[in-house]
Formats: sequence, C-alpha cells, structure tokens
Amino acid sequence: MNYFRKDRSDEIVNSRTSNTSNPRVQEVMSSLIRHLHNFAKEVELTQEEWEHAVDFLTRTGQKCSGERQEFILLSDVLGFSMLVDAINNPRPEGATENTVFGPFHVAGAPEREMGARITLEDKGESCLYEGCVTDLDGNPIKGARIDVWSDNAEGFYDVQQPDEQPKWNNRGIFTTGSDGRYSFIGIRPVSYPIPDDGPVGEMLKAMGRHPYRPAHTHFLVTAPGYQKLVTHIFVSGDPYLSTDAVFGVKDSLIAPYERTENAETVWRSPFNFVLTPFSHKSTQ
Amino acid sequence: MNYFRKDRSDEIVNSRTSNTSNPRVQEVMSSLIRHLHNFAKEVELTQEEWEHAVDFLTRTGQKCSGERQEFILLSDVLGFSMLVDAINNPRPEGATENTVFGPFHVAGAPEREMGARITLEDKGESCLYEGCVTDLDGNPIKGARIDVWSDNAEGFYDVQQPDEQPKWNNRGIFTTGSDGRYSFIGIRPVSYPIPDDGPVGEMLKAMGRHPYRPAHTHFLVTAPGYQKLVTHIFVSGDPYLSTDAVFGVKDSLIAPYERTENAETVWRSPFNFVLTPFSHKSTQ
Repeated sequence: MNYFRKDRSDEIVNSRTSNTSNPRVQEVMSSLIRHLHNFAKEVELTQEEWEHAVDFLTRTGQKCSGERQEFILLSDVLGFSMLVDAINNPRPEGATENTVFGPFHVAGAPEREMGARITLEDKGESCLYEGCVTDLDGNPIKGARIDVWSDNAEGFYDVQQPDEQPKWNNRGIFTTGSDGRYSFIGIRPVSYPIPDDGPVGEMLKAMGRHPYRPAHTHFLVTAPGYQKLVTHIFVSGDPYLSTDAVFGVKDSLIAPYERTENAETVWRSPFNFVLTPFSHKSTQ
Repeated sequence: MNYFRKDRSDEIVNSRTSNTSNPRVQEVMSSLIRHLHNFAKEVELTQEEWEHAVDFLTRTGQKCSGERQEFILLSDVLGFSMLVDAINNPRPEGATENTVFGPFHVAGAPEREMGARITLEDKGESCLYEGCVTDLDGNPIKGARIDVWSDNAEGFYDVQQPDEQPKWNNRGIFTTGSDGRYSFIGIRPVSYPIPDDGPVGEMLKAMGRHPYRPAHTHFLVTAPGYQKLVTHIFVSGDPYLSTDAVFGVKDSLIAPYERTENAETVWRSPFNFVLTPFSHKSTQ
C-alpha cells in the first residue's frame, strides 16, 4: 500500500494527483510539493515552527483588504515577485529592463500635454523628466504611451492619502509624437517604507531587514508591436539602492538627477526607454 | 552592487538577512527562500499563475475562523502535516506510530469509568474498544490517560453539530489501572469528507483528488515518562484507506473490527498502545 512514509513523502503525495487533471497543474503542484517537503526535511522543521507558519499565513491573508495586499508584499520582500518578473520578461541587451509593478498604480490617470506638470501640490523639489522612447536600433517610437506615477515629497502616493493629496497627484499619461520624445515636470521622489505594521513587517524585523524602498518613479510604457515595459527609474545616490526591501533595483534603471539653474525646476532627470518588439526572442 | 539577478536570486535575497538575527530564523528562511526560488525557476511560473497563487493564499487566510483553519487543511492535503509529524516524532520499532492530530480535538472531555459508553445518542453500530497500554517491553503502564474522540454515524464530530448532537458525544477520557488495560463502548466510525467548500476543496478538484478520510477513531495517549502519542486507529477494509485525503494512514494503525454476538455491541476492535519512553533515542 502507498501509505505515507517520510523517506518518500513527496513521491507518495504526488502519486495521488490524478493523471487526468490538467498537465500544467500536475507539473506545478508536483514541483511545489517536492520543494516544500525537501525544505521541511532540510531544516527539520519543528511542530512549533509549523504552528507559527500556519498562524503567520493566516494573519497575512486576514490583513488583506481592498487597499492592502499582504501576500503580494510577502512575495515582494522574498524576492519572489522580481523572480517571476525575470522569468516572464527577459529583455535583450540594450532594452530597458522591467522591475516590480507595485501596488500603487491606478488605471485611468489623466492624459496630459507633453511637458505638463503632474505634481498638483506645492510640496517637494520639482524635476524635469525627459528622454526618448526608441526601438532596439535607436529609432524613435511614435504613439508610445507613458503612464507615470510616484510618491510625493513625504513618501506617500495619492491613493494612500485621499483626504490630503489632490486626486491624480504625481500621476499622468503622455503619448509620444513622431520624434519619440517625452517630457513632464514632477518631483524628485523620496524613499519610503513599505507597510510594515503587519505580518510581513514582523518577518522583516525577525530577519534584521529594514522596510525601505529607495526613491523611484514608476513607468508603464506601452506601444503597439512592443512588449509592455513595467519599470521604475531610481534616484542615483539614494542610500537604500543596494538594500531595496523588494529587490527592485537594477543598475540600468538608476538615473542621474542633475541640478538645474532655471527657475521652474530644481532637478532634471534624463532617461531613454528602449522597447522590445513582441517578435524578439528571449536571449536569456 | 548586489542587485537582483535571476541566476543568483536566492543567494542575493538571503544575503540581506542580517547575520545578527536569530540563527534558526536565518537557517529556516534561507532554506525556504532557496526552495521557493528553485520551484519558480523549475516550472517557469507565469505571471498569471503567480496572481492565482496570491489570490488562493489570500482566500485561504480569509476562510479561517474560530471554527475553521483552512491553512492547516492545506498543510494536511499536501502531506506537509504528516511530514512535520514524522520529522518530530520518530518512533522505535514496536512502538505505536503517530498520525495527524486533526482539528476536532476538544480539551476537557469528561473522565469516564473504564468500560463506559462514550456514544450519547442512538445512532450507529456500537463497538467495544479494548486493549492494553504497554511500554516497549510489553509491561503494562499504570496511569496512562487515553483521550478518545470520533465522528458519529453520519460523519460529523459533535463540535460540527452543536445543536444536533449531545455535548461530548463520542468523546471521553479513560485512565488505566495497574493492568494497563482499557475498554469503552463507542461506535464503528464512518468515512467523511474534509471541508471542501473552500480554496483547499478547489485545489483538490483541480488535482483530481477526492476529499475523503477513511473511518477512524482518534486517540491521544499520555503517561508520565513517555512521549505523547497522537494517533488514530483506522477501520480495516475502509475503501479510502489507501487514498486518505490527509495521508494519515499507516499500516500499523489499521485495526480489526470483529462482529460480536453479544447483545450490547455489534463490533469489537482490539488494539494495544505501545508508548515510547522520553529517554528513547530516535532510531530513524
């Protein structure tokens, strides 16, 4: 009989999955069960640790609400979200790299005139963002849609402070013309902690890790015929660049922030987005 | 800089854990992170599958309540609960083996006279349970405390039907005398499905697995100087023995159920419990 045995535990559990079930379900669950069992055996997980894990996962689920997704946060701080992105969105040499999407994008931001200001309050140091959207050969892409969002000078997105910030503060959508160029005025963003008053915050504390993300501005860049680019540009020199709580930083995504002399803006951050055509095969 | 890279993802994430944190936290998290990352790489987890997992885990947490622990159920059907038990409670040759505790134990059941009836309603086929509690050498153990619980003839524990079953139905605690013997009258239990109206039930369906447990009676046997025994005895011949939804069956825990001729009981199930002294070193 195929009863439970410690030495063949994953094999016995997996033998129960019906071979008439979806082949992908079989593949994913079989690998997951094998890795989970090997983990427990490797560390000789105690009964108390198992109880702690059950309690932790339960509280993580119960912390989730319309405004808070604690399991995504958990995935983020374990580097799992970045890994899934890396697996699914490899980019060829020269193309702008992806990073985590994050929980603060809101669909339907206002479409703005090129060069317009997205910061709708008087806080923070203003920054001119500009650059070009091109293909892998450097040709400008017309009709690229740039959806941008960032926190304000106090480290909060508008949706975190609906009563204190103007609606759509530090958000906007821009569409390139035939020169592929974009520009807008926002702020130089600031670093901020991810929500750390829940189970994920407890876990970070237990691991001796801080909850901070380095200052960054989010971009979602799309154009017909090109792969969707979900990325940030990071403020060079930020003290949290090398220890981003969610592992989002890539060397190619750190942008210069140059002091400007003009009256309208304090900073200027140039950055070009290089999109990958759908037809491009992964080189990773 | 130690930025995220797919090929060294687990190593980079683990390098963030402070080496001043609890060494056991470091050991457990490092192994967990490595296995989770290797799982995602091995199956090339898609973004949609990741989203499905986040939703599944969230709903599993939100299904938990005072009366329902969906994460324990998840652990059970993945064979993880049995594995943790096997890691922590290896038993020497000849000793009675452990199995899963299950969610239906209630502390504080009535202490009953040896031979008493624990079934407090008129349903089901009565069964005389009897045997001896001994040490590894077969010597009777005096003062062993036997806490027993089972479902009723319709497959429900009393706590699942507080308005329909008498309180403490099919539960009781018995203490052995100097002969180590025990006996009581219960019912021949029936097989039943684990709660399958939540995320775990969905998962079982997707894997082509049924939710049934073979008929069993739970025992928690303790005695001073001996390791706690958490086990079931299973009804021989049950059709679900080889496919128990939570992998609880072990060959040594299947007990005979013999038809009796006497007027008081329909069945007799003899079973001896062999306890392991605290001092015994694991032989596994």
